[in-house]
Amino acid sequence: MQGLMQDWPLLCQRIIEHAARQHPKRRIVTRTVEGPIEVTNYAELHSLSLRISKKLNQDGVTLGDRVGTLAWSTARHLACWYGIAGLGAIYHPVNPRLFPEQIAYIINDAKDRVMLVDTSFVSLLESIADKLTTVERFVVLTDRAHMPDTSLKGAVSFEEWLEGVDDQFQWPTFDENTAVTLTYTSGTTGNPKGVLYSHRSVNLMSLTGIAPDMYAFSSHDIVLQVIPMSHANGWSWPFSAPMTGAGLVFPGAQLDGASLVELIESEGVTMSGGVPTVWQSILSYLAGKGQRLTKLKRVYIGGSAGSRALLEEFRDRHGVEVRSGFGMTEMGPMSGVGSLMPETAALPPEQEIAIRQTQGRPPYLVEYRLIDDQGQAQPWDGESPGHLRARGPCIAQAYYGQAPGSALDEDGFFDSGDIATIDVNGYVHLTDRAKDLVKSGGEWISSIDLENHAMGFPGIHEAAVVGVRHPKWDERPLMLVVPKPGASVEKQAMLKFLSARVARWWLPDDVVEVTDIPHTATGKINKAALRRTFAAHYSPADDKS
Amino acid sequence: MQGLMQDWPLLCQRIIEHAARQHPKRRIVTRTVEGPIEVTNYAELHSLSLRISKKLNQDGVTLGDRVGTLAWSTARHLACWYGIAGLGAIYHPVNPRLFPEQIAYIINDAKDRVMLVDTSFVSLLESIADKLTTVERFVVLTDRAHMPDTSLKGAVSFEEWLEGVDDQFQWPTFDENTAVTLTYTSGTTGNPKGVLYSHRSVNLMSLTGIAPDMYAFSSHDIVLQVIPMSHANGWSWPFSAPMTGAGLVFPGAQLDGASLVELIESEGVTMSGGVPTVWQSILSYLAGKGQRLTKLKRVYIGGSAGSRALLEEFRDRHGVEVRSGFGMTEMGPMSGVGSLMPETAALPPEQEIAIRQTQGRPPYLVEYRLIDDQGQAQPWDGESPGHLRARGPCIAQAYYGQAPGSALDEDGFFDSGDIATIDVNGYVHLTDRAKDLVKSGGEWISSIDLENHAMGFPGIHEAAVVGVRHPKWDERPLMLVVPKPGASVEKQAMLKFLSARVARWWLPDDVVEVTDIPHTATGKINKAALRRTFAAHYSPADDKS
Repeated sequence: MQGLMQDWPLLCQRIIEHAARQHPKRRIVTRTVEGPIEVTNYAELHSLSLRISKKLNQDGVTLGDRVGTLAWSTARHLACWYGIAGLGAIYHPVNPRLFPEQIAYIINDAKDRVMLVDTSFVSLLESIADKLTTVERFVVLTDRAHMPDTSLKGAVSFEEWLEGVDDQFQWPTFDENTAVTLTYTSGTTGNPKGVLYSHRSVNLMSLTGIAPDMYAFSSHDIVLQVIPMSHANGWSWPFSAPMTGAGLVFPGAQLDGASLVELIESEGVTMSGGVPTVWQSILSYLAGKGQRLTKLKRVYIGGSAGSRALLEEFRDRHGVEVRSGFGMTEMGPMSGVGSLMPETAALPPEQEIAIRQTQGRPPYLVEYRLIDDQGQAQPWDGESPGHLRARGPCIAQAYYGQAPGSALDEDGFFDSGDIATIDVNGYVHLTDRAKDLVKSGGEWISSIDLENHAMGFPGIHEAAVVGVRHPKWDERPLMLVVPKPGASVEKQAMLKFLSARVARWWLPDDVVEVTDIPHTATGKINKAALRRTFAAHYSPADDKS
Repeated sequence: MQGLMQDWPLLCQRIIEHAARQHPKRRIVTRTVEGPIEVTNYAELHSLSLRISKKLNQDGVTLGDRVGTLAWSTARHLACWYGIAGLGAIYHPVNPRLFPEQIAYIINDAKDRVMLVDTSFVSLLESIADKLTTVERFVVLTDRAHMPDTSLKGAVSFEEWLEGVDDQFQWPTFDENTAVTLTYTSGTTGNPKGVLYSHRSVNLMSLTGIAPDMYAFSSHDIVLQVIPMSHANGWSWPFSAPMTGAGLVFPGAQLDGASLVELIESEGVTMSGGVPTVWQSILSYLAGKGQRLTKLKRVYIGGSAGSRALLEEFRDRHGVEVRSGFGMTEMGPMSGVGSLMPETAALPPEQEIAIRQTQGRPPYLVEYRLIDDQGQAQPWDGESPGHLRARGPCIAQAYYGQAPGSALDEDGFFDSGDIATIDVNGYVHLTDRAKDLVKSGGEWISSIDLENHAMGFPGIHEAAVVGVRHPKWDERPLMLVVPKPGASVEKQAMLKFLSARVARWWLPDDVVEVTDIPHTATGKINKAALRRTFAAHYSPADDKS
């Protein structure tokens, strides 16, 4: 028997309609790419979204078409998202920090018909324009006065494009499982892979994120969108904020400490989030100025865990609560937040910080499973590592262009590719990427744990650990180290240092000084490259075991 | 193009699975109907729900079957809900305060196959047993020792019923639009009507309720379930709490001030909600004892608005924030909460209280429309009254047994039956039930506004206003008044009192002292009865205009 409730699909355009109806005047601030601060509100953003839809529709864009954006976090960028989504078309936010050939690849793979691009990225697009096979039109997100001279075919400024287009447009209604956005993973090996969110998944993820134990959005919050909108859908905040009537502040192209602190203080920002380096630069700036934050209440750290020092400085000097956030594009993107719960709220400060550094605990709608190589469930004891797999309505079942269900195991779970432990209270602690684990004699050694310990060694600048083929143990760990300028890192001293911190059989068989460690486009250590370079390091002639 | 996210239907049983996985040990407390306090947790509640499912399944209950409950708010009652829902069957919580003949009517209308009943209500069921045409089995929610002697056919105690039944049972997966619960409105005119929620609507409503500006549930909350579970699905709290890992406290049959205060203080309850009379009795008890509440933070008032005195006493004496909640069974059940927002947070205390007394503002997923008799949209200015209509995934489209969509207007909106104003910040203020409005010469007069003003008149116990047919003005207001013992209410004095408070043309054409005003089963003034009794009061011979 079916219920008798209304058939009201969860469509993203309804979120901006809600905000325009219930919070029309809420302040939305952007530091524009051109420089000046621009102020708008949800009523105006709604109107602009409708104009964009109307124009795209006139240009022949329709349900299912892909429209790329290559843009900073701005209110205009967000209006483009809603304008594209409202038509049932698919917005595809391109990460400008990918290599140009990757950008060309994903625009072609997505078959983007239109590119909406900030002036900052026009020359980047020009450099790959001859490789783009599907783009019919380039719209530069600026006014006539700032329109650059460009070789992009048919390029038009946003102002000119929308001229004479009013907001009298009716968004269609369609199935909530319709795709709404395509985001590519950075792809450390091989080509980037697309993840295709639905209107339903974006709605559910954004609703879930509002909860007090998650991002805790309310109409009283003013949210600084530091995390780029091209990074995992901006953590869904561009949807959670208008759902609740929270104010939004967009930093545009200025992500330095001084610019962000100015926005935080002048706009009374209450919460924000981003990768640790952003927060480190904000704290450095504040320390240099001897300045304290007065209104910021909560900071979410994702991408990688924040350091203990960073969390303590926020708490002790600025009265700001730091929560870790964990997710990945394939997970919708948020799958856990490191908020406290009754079991952990009364811990001593040291242990409390450790909880805040975990990858958090999942909300309702995210089901975790922890299994070993044989598929056996591992206990949630904070010690037993396993493959972290996840199930839920906001988690991918396949990559773009692949068969439905192709990314799932036989129980319908998605493999995060991470190795984790889960403690008795449900907090997840990532110990490694599965492909970076060192598998020695059937046992697992965490490359990340070894690296983290090594970073405590005096004079070290960076450390990387990879598993290298070994005739007896299958793999053994190899540590590459980059000393600080003028310093050096002795193999025996490092091994002695580590032997006080990890099990004896975890100790790298060799420690090699290098001048540089390769990184991917998104700043992660490129372990695939290291494994190739050092593939024969433990060849039989070198066998030390 | 469809998104590529997982197909994970929103099913109610997944909520208790989540709580058992992430918050297994969270304390759940019940004051049992038998007397003693009983403590359980989400892991045990999950296990008990599975046992109930397994047993119902053995008894032949299957997808779509209805199972009635006639029970107080207890953990066992909640386990029954999850056990029924997990099978895809439909729990039907019967309001024990309905008249016995109404109870017989709705059990037959629902075609309940099984009745789960607290010992308190066994004799009530016995008194109508010969009228029940579909019930095959009665399970009394108690142990063997407390099992009453009963004439209910095949009655068995809960303990005996579940004996030898373990929790090894796998809940099926099915369409999220499957019906999960049937609740009947009290039906002031005609027979009660059933509202049939789906798994989807209960999930979405419960997720929405978690938001900081709504009920603000977190794992740190301890929630006292004062609002009866048979009243509009207990405001969805039995689902929002386990979604977030909040603790739950069930008051069972003891809803007096002393019992509730004892639970609030001993269990450290942080939030609760109910109708104003419950809170009035709590405040009276506290005042009598000279006691202050120490841990309660938020109280939600629904059913009708709390008085200014009640809100002030909570705020000033107990440091408790009071928020109004507005909903109705047909609305999922919650459609608005009177939390503050930036525009109203800085108001003077007087005006702030007035905001908290409104019917609040709707969350995302509730769309309001305010229209006049001609279907024209009314402005949101806080003054223009209109019919309040609503659209959303948690709002009914038809009553049970009626054709899909039969309760909707041409735009797909459900008519709440209320007359309201909406102010510039989106707060709804109900001015009357549409059927109780007095329509005088094409203009609307609010019977409730007149009653509220009249209640300020010295010596008045109760006032009721109804529209009575009038030869010139179609209808004119008639006021019935019940004086306090020993007092009297003079017509001319009342009219003079009112004329300082309402427009002249709103003044009742007559004020009549009566000894008693009739009420419905749920305590509302029975205006239909009054209209019948006084139908000819303004007959031509009495024409005063």
